[in-house]
Amino acid sequence: MKRKRIFVKKTNEQRMEFTAKQIANLIEGQIEGNPDVIVDNLSKIEEGESGSLSFLANPKYTHYIYQTKASIVIVSKDFKAEKAINATLIRVEDAYTAFAKLLETYNQIKQNKTGISSNISISKTAKYGTDCYIGDFVCIGDNSKIGNNVKIYPHSYIGDNVSIGDNSCIYAGVKIYSDNWIGKNCTVHAGAVIGSDGFGFAPQSDNHYNKVAQIGNVIIEDNVEIGSNTTIDRATLGSTIIRKGVKLDNLIQIAHNVEIGENTVIAAQTGISGSTKIGKNCMIGGQVGIIGHIMIADGVKIAAQSGIGGSIKQEGAIIQGSPAFDISTYRKSYVHFRNLPKIVERLNELEKKSGGA
Amino acid sequence: MKRKRIFVKKTNEQRMEFTAKQIANLIEGQIEGNPDVIVDNLSKIEEGESGSLSFLANPKYTHYIYQTKASIVIVSKDFKAEKAINATLIRVEDAYTAFAKLLETYNQIKQNKTGISSNISISKTAKYGTDCYIGDFVCIGDNSKIGNNVKIYPHSYIGDNVSIGDNSCIYAGVKIYSDNWIGKNCTVHAGAVIGSDGFGFAPQSDNHYNKVAQIGNVIIEDNVEIGSNTTIDRATLGSTIIRKGVKLDNLIQIAHNVEIGENTVIAAQTGISGSTKIGKNCMIGGQVGIIGHIMIADGVKIAAQSGIGGSIKQEGAIIQGSPAFDISTYRKSYVHFRNLPKIVERLNELEKKSGGA
Amino acid sequence: MKRKRIFVKKTNEQRMEFTAKQIANLIEGQIEGNPDVIVDNLSKIEEGESGSLSFLANPKYTHYIYQTKASIVIVSKDFKAEKAINATLIRVEDAYTAFAKLLETYNQIKQNKTGISSNISISKTAKYGTDCYIGDFVCIGDNSKIGNNVKIYPHSYIGDNVSIGDNSCIYAGVKIYSDNWIGKNCTVHAGAVIGSDGFGFAPQSDNHYNKVAQIGNVIIEDNVEIGSNTTIDRATLGSTIIRKGVKLDNLIQIAHNVEIGENTVIAAQTGISGSTKIGKNCMIGGQVGIIGHIMIADGVKIAAQSGIGGSIKQEGAIIQGSPAFDISTYRKSYVHFRNLPKIVERLNELEKKSGGA
Repeated sequence: MKRKRIFVKKTNEQRMEFTAKQIANLIEGQIEGNPDVIVDNLSKIEEGESGSLSFLANPKYTHYIYQTKASIVIVSKDFKAEKAINATLIRVEDAYTAFAKLLETYNQIKQNKTGISSNISISKTAKYGTDCYIGDFVCIGDNSKIGNNVKIYPHSYIGDNVSIGDNSCIYAGVKIYSDNWIGKNCTVHAGAVIGSDGFGFAPQSDNHYNKVAQIGNVIIEDNVEIGSNTTIDRATLGSTIIRKGVKLDNLIQIAHNVEIGENTVIAAQTGISGSTKIGKNCMIGGQVGIIGHIMIADGVKIAAQSGIGGSIKQEGAIIQGSPAFDISTYRKSYVHFRNLPKIVERLNELEKKSGGA
Repeated sequence: MKRKRIFVKKTNEQRMEFTAKQIANLIEGQIEGNPDVIVDNLSKIEEGESGSLSFLANPKYTHYIYQTKASIVIVSKDFKAEKAINATLIRVEDAYTAFAKLLETYNQIKQNKTGISSNISISKTAKYGTDCYIGDFVCIGDNSKIGNNVKIYPHSYIGDNVSIGDNSCIYAGVKIYSDNWIGKNCTVHAGAVIGSDGFGFAPQSDNHYNKVAQIGNVIIEDNVEIGSNTTIDRATLGSTIIRKGVKLDNLIQIAHNVEIGENTVIAAQTGISGSTKIGKNCMIGGQVGIIGHIMIADGVKIAAQSGIGGSIKQEGAIIQGSPAFDISTYRKSYVHFRNLPKIVERLNELEKKSGGA
Repeated sequence: MKRKRIFVKKTNEQRMEFTAKQIANLIEGQIEGNPDVIVDNLSKIEEGESGSLSFLANPKYTHYIYQTKASIVIVSKDFKAEKAINATLIRVEDAYTAFAKLLETYNQIKQNKTGISSNISISKTAKYGTDCYIGDFVCIGDNSKIGNNVKIYPHSYIGDNVSIGDNSCIYAGVKIYSDNWIGKNCTVHAGAVIGSDGFGFAPQSDNHYNKVAQIGNVIIEDNVEIGSNTTIDRATLGSTIIRKGVKLDNLIQIAHNVEIGENTVIAAQTGISGSTKIGKNCMIGGQVGIIGHIMIADGVKIAAQSGIGGSIKQEGAIIQGSPAFDISTYRKSYVHFRNLPKIVERLNELEKKSGGA
């Protein structure tokens, strides 16, 4: 399996190669070894191959540095080699931070797509700013406004009257219905749907349902990330609101009129029912289900797979279970649940004694 | 945050504005105040701004009518003002019903897209009726038949031999595989997939699996709504069937050969395994999992996050848990589950007494 | 409801019709009845209509053969009719195997799309092999390599530096980010997303999060099937790896740096958190949640809706619950859980006795 190369040719002409000297300049490090050695991909130290750049941050991995075939390894200033090392070293204040900075820089270079494809459909009344990338087969509706430095990948659908703020990135095949707002510096991953109808139906006397028109919208504030194939429904009336800094993982369901507070983080496959308000700085695990029309206080943490059936008013509460309650109590109860067969045996025994008495 | 405007310009030329007089005509109401005041968006009464139309239906919200900046408020015939009101009032029999009718009308105007884009790929053997909207980059395969007044939004894929009935709406990026049938008056939200292969694999002696060909199809009857990114697999043989009036929320999984009865409603992220038959008029909560090859009687209600491991033969049963059983029994058991640490203490105490005896 | 026809016209000119003689040749069977009778669709024996082909494998269904209107029925060599049968019979060694072979053949004919649409966007530096199908509005980025006999359905997005092996099939609207690898003989169903960013954010002192650049990729080995709207995130560094023969159902979430071993099968809506390694030949039910940074041994079976909170080191373990433990113990505990109200009554009774003593 030789497929783990991460730095890759961008085109046949433009290969992403860097010398140790270039990298040392970028991360303000000192070279030990050959400054002209070239790398064109990144690797973990335990998997490093010739031509790759790696780093050593966790002391548990120190022994790998004597075996690694990586051409360059970033190490901390105070690292002391106990044996010979083949790789060129670059010494920095903090190896992990330096490496993370490199990743970021590299990613920015690689993802710096620009230009407007000629294979798009854009309304005459739509506008976009400078330095945008609009990929093939993108569709942008009437009166939509796309800010500066926005990237819209192929097959994305932007309805009418949509606004997308500066520096946001919309990956491939995202569907944004009409009348929705996305702030600045947002990332929306492939296949996400923003602004589909809330699930509202009025039961009729003969058991069928009439649709309740869903004419609100979705407002997504700045610095929000939305995962692949996540769905966010428009409000029945008013707005479904995702406050600034919220991070949503993949395959999450956000129902109509939900509001999620600043910097709340939600893991994959969680679902939030209609009109629920979630506070700021919450951490919600994966596959959590939250009932509609409740509120959850700031800073609440909810364990994965929990079910929330009522409001949580205590700030910073940590809860688990379906329905969920305090996590440490839950865990005690669950230990006893596992033990129920023995508990019932003890009960049987007592009854025998008692009956025998 | 001034982004909650719902009525919006359709193009620079055509602004959606209405006078109190026009609205009163539409909902057969009587005006109290300025009949010429103009609104161009809707609002909740507690958030109403100048230029917006609101309504007062819930008595709890009555006090807002004296403060609201909404230009028009729809109220019930018998509403009696106790203070001065700035807004123009429109009196009707039932304020909520009148407002809902307005929403519906507004929505119909707004969503009344028509016309066939020139950026589509449609087979010579495909047919479509009158008054259709077929958006940019739509793809329609051989022999497919699209009825009258059908709307197909951009990036939707309609395979070969697909049939879509009159008045149905297929939102952006829906994928309908070949040979599937969709009835009249259906709505399929963005990113839904209809007719992908059932999950059928035959285990082989060396632990790998051979695919079982999935050559059935999906039949969706009239008046069905299907949520965003929901997936409905084709039958191995025969049909996966969604009966008329069924409402499916977002991110639901319907496996091969499932049948869902008339007017059953299913909330988001629920999954139904292969060959299970669900009755009519059922209500199934979110994140429910239902095993394959069982049947569920008519009118059954299943609480969110429940797991159904066997047939439910009792009509109208209400159940919860994983595996699920009668909901009131479940709730009693769960109260005791939360209490298990105390129950075990009581048992310890009894044993001490008993052992000491 | 006459919509269950499976064999359908491909175009007005080319109808998929077969005589009993043609079918008997294909499955090496012997005809009893009219060899010239024509069928153009398949049916279950209990639903068979004139012009359809059916089969009898399960003895429970034997009585249907005397009533069925199917024109041809495949039966086993040793089937003995007890009454008159209208259908033409084709006798074979094993009716089910023969029918499955027919399905497979039929499916291959039907799905044998070829040709490169002129409505695509393909980079000059991308390459594809012989006998490919590339559908309308497909987008293929720089340096991507598509093997021989690969089918890419409409609206699929293939980023830069992607590799897709021979004989793989990418259905409509699949989104494959840059730098990802897909092996030979793979099937990726509609709407699946491969290679979106892992969910990695570094908390900052003021409660907001900085994104951690996700620059690894996804490697999918040979013979893998991926369900509709399933999402597989790229590794932070290195690769998220799906080993050969893995079968993933719909709406599954695979987080960054996960590795799934050979021939493991996972049912719909399951989620696997970051950096978890799953062994080979595992069977994982639907809606299971697996925490990050753990390992699961080979051959482990996990019941639907279970939650896995720690490593499972025992090969072949069968577990259930959230958190999950041994399935037979779980089931015993759950029986007692259902019984908790009675258990508590017994405890009350004992305490009364004990207190009264």
